[in-house]
Amino acid sequence: MTLSRFNVRTDSKVYPVIIGQDIIDRIGDLIDGSIGRGFIVTDNVISEIYLDSLIQGLKSSGIETVTKVLQAGESFKTLESVKVLYDFLANELASRSDTLIAFGGGVIGDIAGFVASTFKRGMNLVHVPTTLLAQVDSAVGGKTGVNLSEGKNLVGTFYQPNAVIADVCTLKSLPLDDFVAGLAEVIKYGVIMDHEFFQFLIDNKDEILLRNPELISAIVERALRNKAQIVEEDEREEKGRREILNFGHTVGHAIEICSNHTILHGQAVAIGMVEEARIAVRMGKLDSSILETLIYSLSLFGLSTKIPSGIDVSQLSVIMKQDKKVRNGQLTIPILVGLGKTRMMVVDSVNNLNLVRRNGDDKQC
Amino acid sequence: MTLSRFNVRTDSKVYPVIIGQDIIDRIGDLIDGSIGRGFIVTDNVISEIYLDSLIQGLKSSGIETVTKVLQAGESFKTLESVKVLYDFLANELASRSDTLIAFGGGVIGDIAGFVASTFKRGMNLVHVPTTLLAQVDSAVGGKTGVNLSEGKNLVGTFYQPNAVIADVCTLKSLPLDDFVAGLAEVIKYGVIMDHEFFQFLIDNKDEILLRNPELISAIVERALRNKAQIVEEDEREEKGRREILNFGHTVGHAIEICSNHTILHGQAVAIGMVEEARIAVRMGKLDSSILETLIYSLSLFGLSTKIPSGIDVSQLSVIMKQDKKVRNGQLTIPILVGLGKTRMMVVDSVNNLNLVRRNGDDKQC
Repeated sequence: MTLSRFNVRTDSKVYPVIIGQDIIDRIGDLIDGSIGRGFIVTDNVISEIYLDSLIQGLKSSGIETVTKVLQAGESFKTLESVKVLYDFLANELASRSDTLIAFGGGVIGDIAGFVASTFKRGMNLVHVPTTLLAQVDSAVGGKTGVNLSEGKNLVGTFYQPNAVIADVCTLKSLPLDDFVAGLAEVIKYGVIMDHEFFQFLIDNKDEILLRNPELISAIVERALRNKAQIVEEDEREEKGRREILNFGHTVGHAIEICSNHTILHGQAVAIGMVEEARIAVRMGKLDSSILETLIYSLSLFGLSTKIPSGIDVSQLSVIMKQDKKVRNGQLTIPILVGLGKTRMMVVDSVNNLNLVRRNGDDKQC
Repeated sequence: MTLSRFNVRTDSKVYPVIIGQDIIDRIGDLIDGSIGRGFIVTDNVISEIYLDSLIQGLKSSGIETVTKVLQAGESFKTLESVKVLYDFLANELASRSDTLIAFGGGVIGDIAGFVASTFKRGMNLVHVPTTLLAQVDSAVGGKTGVNLSEGKNLVGTFYQPNAVIADVCTLKSLPLDDFVAGLAEVIKYGVIMDHEFFQFLIDNKDEILLRNPELISAIVERALRNKAQIVEEDEREEKGRREILNFGHTVGHAIEICSNHTILHGQAVAIGMVEEARIAVRMGKLDSSILETLIYSLSLFGLSTKIPSGIDVSQLSVIMKQDKKVRNGQLTIPILVGLGKTRMMVVDSVNNLNLVRRNGDDKQC
């Protein structure tokens, strides 16, 4: 099997990222050192297809496992699910030296990461992401999160995993919408910090959409190396550096909430990137031709670029006031200043963002 | 006002500990830098007596406050209370740059600390402890915790506060049982690491029980300097050093749970210290005369030293298996090897601890 492997070196932890094809059933060989018992947390969709392989891959290295299957979907990223996992771990007498294995997409990674960081004040954590979004983004960097009814990821921790193991072959079974939504986060790295990567994605559009595993491996690695670089510089979002990864997410999160999570995260981020680039143009920081390039490129991969008609635009500003990036009443967001270049800037007032919506009915969210 | 002030220097944060008399109503002057808005979390007992002073002390420095009052008591240290606080913060649009002020005893400090560490991935936190136990122990060191039905503090984080401000005058209103229970943690520092302090406590027993504020200030400071030293060496309990602070707590926690929290934490720790010292004697690590000295000294302050008749001893071992100090099935606890000297050692099996119970009825917990 061909493997890519590199280390993420944060202040709190140094850990390997391993990317490859058909590696789940040999996963035990890829994990260094003792991980105690493996507490697998997954969802009902992934468990149907890949759980047996994962358990086999751990078992063959002598790792005992116990599994908890949650319902798939963002609407289950709640404190109730957290409680279910705490009780699972407590009843199974999990200890700090045991390992929680997050096996699924971003929702599973966020919630399992939160639980691992807070059960007995922190147990081992290994991410085995199975969606493009989780592989290129959420599994690396240590952000965990749970939604409240008041907002997305309002509860969470910074908690780096002990390892991230991404098998791109799990992406074969991913529904097209999810795959395309994940591409939004991939394109984001190109847009905010890696112009060459952006061009590469455009040039290889057809092969990417065919999910050529060699190509997808390369893309996942490039995306994660970009992310790792930022996380290494600013693990806890304290130095004004890591926030650039939130490009498209301020508007994007609001759209997700307003749509009651019927719009996928990556898709919402795509629209959010366009709206936030539009803000940059209005601020005189970005040439409008780059906004047009962004819209064209996202469309090329089948991503929407306009706020859907079901969303009440006035409501988006209300939701954005709850954003974690609001400090002392001011919203500071990444502003695109060129292709591959982003700066953190204060946006005067969330009330004056002038978000643009496709024609249609006004609806309450 | 006379103040003692020193810094705790951990890897994750450096913060001041300030100890004094009648300082709550001037608290705003004692806090360095901007703390944003103050989100006070307190309980219904403390709020009755001191809340107005605290709000006044913050207001006079221009700090805006919002308050949430929880029910007092260990039985409210639950995920349900955590949820109440998350909703409180979210509805008030609290941001990371605002400050959660934990105003109360150990329960308030543990739960508010947990919430501060996980709301929006961490907001500012100031501890204003109002019980002896919280002042000499839980407010410093960054351990936060919430109970599950399966065990005490099974959920939690390591999260250092931005400041700890202890007004010993709040101890005047503390019920005698709570004051005495707090003394168990004070005595613990003497027993595990500070022989001179142990002797000082014995020598000044009468004045301590009269709560002479000068003397109490000195004791709180000495206790916290001891604790800070340990925490600075081993912030996250990873180096086998910080665990010595858990002396008496393995058996103590089990007693608390078994009594359904009707036995106060400090009181349970006193009994736990005796039982764990007894284990040390049985292991041949401790001279039995020191066990006798310990029992005598605790009794001198009115602390019980025997497992009460209502506790089912066989159940204690079952509960201890859930202890966070269990790794790979083995329990490692601080073993007293002399007065002021402690070593971490593996206790072969929690089933063979031979805990001693006062004569009485066997009861299920």
